[in-house]
Amino acid sequence: MYRIGFIGLGIMGKPMARNLLKAGYQLVVYDRNKDAVKELVNSGAAEGKSPSDVASRSEIIFTMLPNSPDVKEVALGDNGIIHGAKSGSVFIDMSSIAPLVSKEISGKLEQKGVVMLDAPVSGGEPKAIEGTLAIMVGGPEETFNNVKEILGAMGSSVKLVGDIGSGNITKLANQIIVALNIAAMGEAMVLATKAGVDPEKVYQAIRGGLAGSTVMDAKMPMILNGNFKPGFRIELHIKDLMNVMETARELDVPVSLTDQVLEMMKTLQRSGKGKDDHCSIIRYYEDLAGVEVRKK
Amino acid sequence: MYRIGFIGLGIMGKPMARNLLKAGYQLVVYDRNKDAVKELVNSGAAEGKSPSDVASRSEIIFTMLPNSPDVKEVALGDNGIIHGAKSGSVFIDMSSIAPLVSKEISGKLEQKGVVMLDAPVSGGEPKAIEGTLAIMVGGPEETFNNVKEILGAMGSSVKLVGDIGSGNITKLANQIIVALNIAAMGEAMVLATKAGVDPEKVYQAIRGGLAGSTVMDAKMPMILNGNFKPGFRIELHIKDLMNVMETARELDVPVSLTDQVLEMMKTLQRSGKGKDDHCSIIRYYEDLAGVEVRKK
Repeated sequence: MYRIGFIGLGIMGKPMARNLLKAGYQLVVYDRNKDAVKELVNSGAAEGKSPSDVASRSEIIFTMLPNSPDVKEVALGDNGIIHGAKSGSVFIDMSSIAPLVSKEISGKLEQKGVVMLDAPVSGGEPKAIEGTLAIMVGGPEETFNNVKEILGAMGSSVKLVGDIGSGNITKLANQIIVALNIAAMGEAMVLATKAGVDPEKVYQAIRGGLAGSTVMDAKMPMILNGNFKPGFRIELHIKDLMNVMETARELDVPVSLTDQVLEMMKTLQRSGKGKDDHCSIIRYYEDLAGVEVRKK
Repeated sequence: MYRIGFIGLGIMGKPMARNLLKAGYQLVVYDRNKDAVKELVNSGAAEGKSPSDVASRSEIIFTMLPNSPDVKEVALGDNGIIHGAKSGSVFIDMSSIAPLVSKEISGKLEQKGVVMLDAPVSGGEPKAIEGTLAIMVGGPEETFNNVKEILGAMGSSVKLVGDIGSGNITKLANQIIVALNIAAMGEAMVLATKAGVDPEKVYQAIRGGLAGSTVMDAKMPMILNGNFKPGFRIELHIKDLMNVMETARELDVPVSLTDQVLEMMKTLQRSGKGKDDHCSIIRYYEDLAGVEVRKK
């Protein structure tokens, strides 16, 4: 059985690492937050001294970190994975980062004989705990096949989508659609509400037709109840859309609608709503229109 | 049993009227297109000489017409419904028009003792033929309850959403969401494709998560096959979004994303794609990015 390293024990990483332990894998963990490390050690993990130390004691090294610079630092910095990893080991970054950074890190690790997969996830904390995340993987097919079962301890949908960076491209596509589908619902429901129509009735009348979506069924009940507890925070969605912008600029692809929703999210963040659920995009419209889309 | 009038025997109106006949209702029909009238007469309908004549021979009068000016003319113009309708009769406009025009027509008819419902539909020609349209109704609850069974001959979902005009408000909300969900998919899939990721794999990786939608499952297979046959035509969606703009301006509601998608649709119409399916919004992005989101 592989020895596994896991670096990054935050809201997502902690339950993901725990699910690997539950599935019977041997784990070495690292985080700057020593309390999080202690929790995992109490559940049976070994403590690593640094990313480099974790890498030297593992055949497969996972990271789950906030954004591109964090992954770059942990992978390539002083005491980084690159200084400990043995040739033939596999590095699987499950963070959501810029796809171009995934490629860059992969190129550097390749010179040390380390194969990288980018494997960002969708589903948030509840699905991280349940082990039912959707995992979108980029990298060599052979490597993917070797680690697929391990990823299955954390997710219920584990799909190879292409070469290194493709996992994060897919995640960005996902985040574009989610953001715009929320905004679409906001624009529509604020119009209906200000026109005097009960938004709950509008929702019930249209959800079964072409306008129906997972976003609508997940978020309309929250909105109607004025519940903006995350779920997925505006500030994290901003991070993802910033990565969309960087990638789109590099590839010369138009993303004008996404750009506009990003500005809405930043406006919400500036007014103190950055930690609210991303369905509060609707509050951008509510504020401008002077109505609230709530249960009557 | 009520005598029913039906005015407007186009792509949608003809199968809808036919379903009323099939359900056993007595029908008087009118259209400027005499061939369409002949077809319905051959199926058992009586021929009306004018909207006014149809109204004078019916207790319930339906219209299914292209847009607000058509409904206004047929309802209130020379030889219009208003000149023939008896006090106590019901006028049900199933066209998709500006909600404010519904209210205006309703106000005029009320003075003659005619009650109006606005009852636009969603689902397009296939569901009009099957009798499985979604029908969104605005108007008095008592009147709605009296005619609900008749509407059931044309639709499988028949919902009262509020006062007169609310049906069309709900339809506009629906059309905003559909347009933006298509555009969202376009922005995301063009980015992924230009980044070198197979769009079919992206679709399969994300459709089960929060990004999933009826639009995605209905339109991605069409797009991947380069099939832009309508379905629902760009030029009709333009008409609906023009009604959104008019309504939003009147109510002072921000609809900036919808406005932008409307401009994309107009650009497509100017380049000769007005009669293509609305999923060809993606071609606006494809043209700018220089890639096509197709099966590999």
